[in-house]
Amino acid sequence: MAVGPGNIVALAPIAGVRIGVANAGIKQVTRPDVVLFEISASASVAGVFTKNAFCAAPVHVAKEHLQGFNEVNAARYLLVNTGNANAGTGEQGMLDAKLCCQALADKLGSSAQCVLPFSTGVIGELLPTAKITSVLDDVIRSLQMDNWRAAAAGILTTDTRIKGHSVSFELAGKSVLITGISKGSGMIRPNMATMLGFVATDADISPSVLQKLLTDATDQSFNRITVDGDTSTNDACILIASGASGVSITENTEAYVVFKQQLNALMLEIALQIVRDGEGATKLVKIVCEHAATVAEALEVAYTVAHSPLVKTALFASDANWGRILAAVGRSGLENLDVDRLKIYLDDICIVENGGRATSYTEEAGAKVMAQDEILIRIVLNRGEVSEAVWTTDLSHDYISINADYRS
Amino acid sequence: MAVGPGNIVALAPIAGVRIGVANAGIKQVTRPDVVLFEISASASVAGVFTKNAFCAAPVHVAKEHLQGFNEVNAARYLLVNTGNANAGTGEQGMLDAKLCCQALADKLGSSAQCVLPFSTGVIGELLPTAKITSVLDDVIRSLQMDNWRAAAAGILTTDTRIKGHSVSFELAGKSVLITGISKGSGMIRPNMATMLGFVATDADISPSVLQKLLTDATDQSFNRITVDGDTSTNDACILIASGASGVSITENTEAYVVFKQQLNALMLEIALQIVRDGEGATKLVKIVCEHAATVAEALEVAYTVAHSPLVKTALFASDANWGRILAAVGRSGLENLDVDRLKIYLDDICIVENGGRATSYTEEAGAKVMAQDEILIRIVLNRGEVSEAVWTTDLSHDYISINADYRS
Repeated sequence: MAVGPGNIVALAPIAGVRIGVANAGIKQVTRPDVVLFEISASASVAGVFTKNAFCAAPVHVAKEHLQGFNEVNAARYLLVNTGNANAGTGEQGMLDAKLCCQALADKLGSSAQCVLPFSTGVIGELLPTAKITSVLDDVIRSLQMDNWRAAAAGILTTDTRIKGHSVSFELAGKSVLITGISKGSGMIRPNMATMLGFVATDADISPSVLQKLLTDATDQSFNRITVDGDTSTNDACILIASGASGVSITENTEAYVVFKQQLNALMLEIALQIVRDGEGATKLVKIVCEHAATVAEALEVAYTVAHSPLVKTALFASDANWGRILAAVGRSGLENLDVDRLKIYLDDICIVENGGRATSYTEEAGAKVMAQDEILIRIVLNRGEVSEAVWTTDLSHDYISINADYRS
Repeated sequence: MAVGPGNIVALAPIAGVRIGVANAGIKQVTRPDVVLFEISASASVAGVFTKNAFCAAPVHVAKEHLQGFNEVNAARYLLVNTGNANAGTGEQGMLDAKLCCQALADKLGSSAQCVLPFSTGVIGELLPTAKITSVLDDVIRSLQMDNWRAAAAGILTTDTRIKGHSVSFELAGKSVLITGISKGSGMIRPNMATMLGFVATDADISPSVLQKLLTDATDQSFNRITVDGDTSTNDACILIASGASGVSITENTEAYVVFKQQLNALMLEIALQIVRDGEGATKLVKIVCEHAATVAEALEVAYTVAHSPLVKTALFASDANWGRILAAVGRSGLENLDVDRLKIYLDDICIVENGGRATSYTEEAGAKVMAQDEILIRIVLNRGEVSEAVWTTDLSHDYISINADYRS
């Protein structure tokens, strides 16, 4: 199941980035499960990674390679596989990730340092390196610019839809493109929330500025979504700036502001596509905590509501059981929370005020909102001026089925 | 569904405590939904209550009355109803709770201050006070010492089983009794974890010592269980010491140590009965975090695993998907967690060591443990000497069904 229509816009090729796909039969036999990005030598590359302490071997290796780049070595290749996360695989997992990087580098006359590896899939099984290396020739042969859609399909696991978005806008009289894809459906919780995201632009941006743009955009997109509160061991998002458009983006310019806006919007779009395709999801729920004293407390309240199994099952039932929202807010741990000043809304319907059900509230009005595919829950704390939003799904029978049956 | 056999021991009457039950038809029509405890004038009474900021009107009133006791006024009556939580009901809820206390006091020639009210059931609907006051004569008429089992049935909501335990032991050559009952099945998470617990002993204990004993016992029992991580607005646990046995318990004595041990064991027993009857539960899971640096980090790790929907669905599937346990430990937020030093066990089977699957581990050994009704997950951090345990359930289709259908 998934929320809303699943069609995505055409994914514009980005000059300076070519993509290859192949099927290695790791877990899928009917669709590609190995994806290769080839990046022009002059491009900048930035990355953000999971904060799970048990981060997977490819995450360790990708971070290590990314940090080691200099004038000689740069990220030239992203090698992605699905079907196996190479997580919880200890020392052997590290050797396996490096082996794949080296095998690819050997075929391309490059250095293993220039390859960033990414894996997603089941945790705790050794990476089938032979299957991956056996299709490297295929994947290299298939490299072409217009392969984003095939890549979006090739990085999926339990996802039911491909995820991607593309925008084009003018800067300094020239056209600039950003295209991105993502994957993720379960084990979705910041930081990072996505399991994998790959975004590229043809703007010309220095590595340090690119890293800042990516970190900020991630914080407002992938790091604001949650399906089940479980942070993956393999989450990673990469942003590539090829420079092919000839448009240079530097800080403290109007171009920077426009680019940042466009990037943030694109990343939020591909983050929300993950929530819409959340395991078993039948609703897309935006939870906004307004007039909080701090960002931390706004997020604490929003996430407590977003993760409450009782709220999520009420959402699945389209039941305006506002008492469960109220109870979740109440247990979110805020000091000196004055429940009499707080208001809770379903879309524009006030459901809670003065510590209880709003006098204007009717079950009919609440039921009408809950029947929607997309629901806004607004919690107005009246403790300050900060507002933060997170996005989540309901909790359905299909979530249980998908996750009780995943390994079988 | 529930875990293990549901039979409980005979619940011994406690001299100094009489119990009445009646059916007011609040939500149930086939079983009692109003329960009254009458406590002898010389008894001590202690209470612990939910920390949810949206605590229900009866919790406010019970705390207020309990704090106001002195030589003249003491807790003489506990008035409990199910079917309606009187939570999220604002000012009217306070008036309704007090009205019921007053109505009872009038009939008994007592003061409203001497009545502690308790409500459990649906949140956000006004308490049907007329239904409750109309059965006060019935409930008073039915007062008798040997009514604990009827009371255990009368305080249930979505529970499928009655919960109670009774112990008898010798102190100073005399017999001492403790009997307790509890209810709770969903919206179960410290603090408090139970929705309601009533425990009485015939030992003679001062109010301040009784409060200390109750707080300590609660912390090791009701505050160590979780079904769905949702803390109720109505949780309360009351401990009564009638003194009828003539055995006095004071601090820093051998009798105190023995009594405390017996009380803690009884409260853990009735807390675990709640977990066994957790909504949709098919497994009782004890999660122990050993060799942690602090109590806080031990509990953080244990609760993160206990609340992980992915771990809980794997438990439901009897799937030894240890990668999900590892991922949950990894995201629990411990600073500088060295994943290579950590070990994870299913019962005595080591599943994780050196950052990955234990070399001695076999799927068969893991599957054998997971097939059990009761499962022990041990996480050995090797960061210190602290050990803490929590108890939880799996997450099943029935949990979704129960909570998606609750109000309909």
